[in-house]
Amino acid sequence: MHVIDVMPPLREGEILPPIAETELARWIALSRVPGLGCVNFKKLAEYFDDTTEAFSAPAEALAKIQGLDPNVIDGLRHFSAWAEIEAEVRRAAKAGIKIVPFTDPIYPARLRSIADPPPVLYVKGEIRNQDERAVAVVGSRSASDYGRRVARDLCWGLASLGFTVVSGMARGIDGAAHEAALNAGGRTLAVLGSGVDRAYPPEHDKLYQRISESGAVISEFPLGTGPVPFNFPVRNRLISGLSLGVVVVEATEKSGSLITASLALEQGREVFAVPGEAGASRSRGTHQLIRQGARLVETVNDIVEEIAPQLCAPKQNAESAPRRALPEHLGDEFQKVFALFQEQSLQIDEVIERSGCSPSRISEILLELELLGYIKQLPGKKYRVED
Amino acid sequence: MHVIDVMPPLREGEILPPIAETELARWIALSRVPGLGCVNFKKLAEYFDDTTEAFSAPAEALAKIQGLDPNVIDGLRHFSAWAEIEAEVRRAAKAGIKIVPFTDPIYPARLRSIADPPPVLYVKGEIRNQDERAVAVVGSRSASDYGRRVARDLCWGLASLGFTVVSGMARGIDGAAHEAALNAGGRTLAVLGSGVDRAYPPEHDKLYQRISESGAVISEFPLGTGPVPFNFPVRNRLISGLSLGVVVVEATEKSGSLITASLALEQGREVFAVPGEAGASRSRGTHQLIRQGARLVETVNDIVEEIAPQLCAPKQNAESAPRRALPEHLGDEFQKVFALFQEQSLQIDEVIERSGCSPSRISEILLELELLGYIKQLPGKKYRVED
Repeated sequence: MHVIDVMPPLREGEILPPIAETELARWIALSRVPGLGCVNFKKLAEYFDDTTEAFSAPAEALAKIQGLDPNVIDGLRHFSAWAEIEAEVRRAAKAGIKIVPFTDPIYPARLRSIADPPPVLYVKGEIRNQDERAVAVVGSRSASDYGRRVARDLCWGLASLGFTVVSGMARGIDGAAHEAALNAGGRTLAVLGSGVDRAYPPEHDKLYQRISESGAVISEFPLGTGPVPFNFPVRNRLISGLSLGVVVVEATEKSGSLITASLALEQGREVFAVPGEAGASRSRGTHQLIRQGARLVETVNDIVEEIAPQLCAPKQNAESAPRRALPEHLGDEFQKVFALFQEQSLQIDEVIERSGCSPSRISEILLELELLGYIKQLPGKKYRVED
Repeated sequence: MHVIDVMPPLREGEILPPIAETELARWIALSRVPGLGCVNFKKLAEYFDDTTEAFSAPAEALAKIQGLDPNVIDGLRHFSAWAEIEAEVRRAAKAGIKIVPFTDPIYPARLRSIADPPPVLYVKGEIRNQDERAVAVVGSRSASDYGRRVARDLCWGLASLGFTVVSGMARGIDGAAHEAALNAGGRTLAVLGSGVDRAYPPEHDKLYQRISESGAVISEFPLGTGPVPFNFPVRNRLISGLSLGVVVVEATEKSGSLITASLALEQGREVFAVPGEAGASRSRGTHQLIRQGARLVETVNDIVEEIAPQLCAPKQNAESAPRRALPEHLGDEFQKVFALFQEQSLQIDEVIERSGCSPSRISEILLELELLGYIKQLPGKKYRVED
């Protein structure tokens, strides 16, 4: 990680204000240039090796970029709010908030791939590599007891299987989702529609602390940004952008969660929806999603089955080992279970019987082996060694 | 209707036993010839103008029928149970039960089109032309209060819109479906897995009476047939065969309703399923259906929207009238609403506002006009005159 949160010394003969010469400041500035939204930013990012060159590039070079809004060229030329950026960098450092530019290795790769990624992320807590295996779980602020229960069950399950739970830290479903992931000892990321330096809503103050200690609170908005309604739909593209798929637990017909679901579809993410009783107003949105093709979710398996193929299995060198050995660190149970597959394919029930492990433990081990690319699931809950 | 339930007099010089010479008896016999199931029957029916000729056709003619099981030829040659058939015909006449052959005009056309239609139907009550507009509503015998409530709401709605509700008269969802249709003053057909001369299950004795008075109880099984478990899945193909679509309200993972649903798919019928809460065992089957592509149903509109295109709109003669007049018997409200469309297409809200009728009444009128082919629905709940 090379998060840039200190100011480099001035260079000799400098003409711009010093702050404009630091790389981080220029990244932050890219998120504030008038007329330069995240879609134009992505175009710059694809054109320049170092996007921050855009500030010093000749206008003719910029004019060549396909589809770039011409106002952006002016905006870049005349950007002058460097003092504010300097103040923000100092404020972030003081509050233990990282400012992560688009090209930083900890900037999530999946988010980097969307059409309108933010130039910088403000992060309270820590984003880890394992957070690439993320699933978003979102839903109504005015959740029912049923919805909260399902959110808890699904997120506990996802976290236990090693998935990071992404949500929006809102009241209702979002809060229940983060909490369940934390209670399962798992990872969770909260994406805010306000600045990352304040807990919103205020009653989630403790939850905000817990998330920033065992996961991360993330925002693209400058520190101090209030919870302006307009920001929430914008924020939703990050929730889906960070995730392999989005699970909508409860949603009325006009719920913001439906926006997240359609953004997810645009981004090529899986969309899942939890059913409820016919006539339940909080399930009307999820039923609509299911009619439109979202996968109906009852248990965590319904989610995992669908996203497992997206998780890259490490490709084995065909010549080196017709039967791979498991790395030692996986422990004895894994070795024992994996050994069962050396001669044959097996059904899950047979694995349980022969291993002597509990069904739930076997489910975990098999999933892990599958995700790591050591075994492969066949139809009918059968598994064999991956070749 | 030419239901044949009396014996014609003997003809001179007859050599077969007299009963074998009546048309009805031969139809019944087609359902009892050993080796001659309903699939082979359909082949005979497609080959002969009068299927009952099969009894007197030369073996060489029968041998030419593509895919006909050779045992059938022997079975037809040696069929001799005419006395039993005679007894059954008398018994049916006494009990007021009609025996309806495949070619009878009251034999439902939609059922006639399936791959394995029964040669005769036993009918207690009356099948009407309007029963071609039928929707099946089925589900668990051990229904929940929720399931029963949804079944009642949907069937009340279907019956009120003029659809005939088809079901299996079983405990639980089926019973609730028939009752709601009757209570709405509508039509309902019960298809039994036992003989039509006995109410099964016994606690549905009163329901059986009501259905046979305001609809029909139907079976393909001989009178006196007991409720043998094997008969129920066989019977299910008639439930779907009679209907435009099948709605499964509640079903466990091994429910017979799932058989009905897959038969419905094979027959090209629409399949609908009602969602429930994640984790509810009685919704596991319906959730499975939805995952497999069944349409999720919350209200009766979800059903009607899907099957409306299947209902034949009477084709207008293009030259005779660019704007058709409604038949007078439809009444003033219909005339008023239809008149609104003479100049323009309208959204449902506009129709409500301009007509002064209640939203629910307008929904009924628009649906009826659509089904009759006077108006056409466009995307976005808009309607225009059908041309």
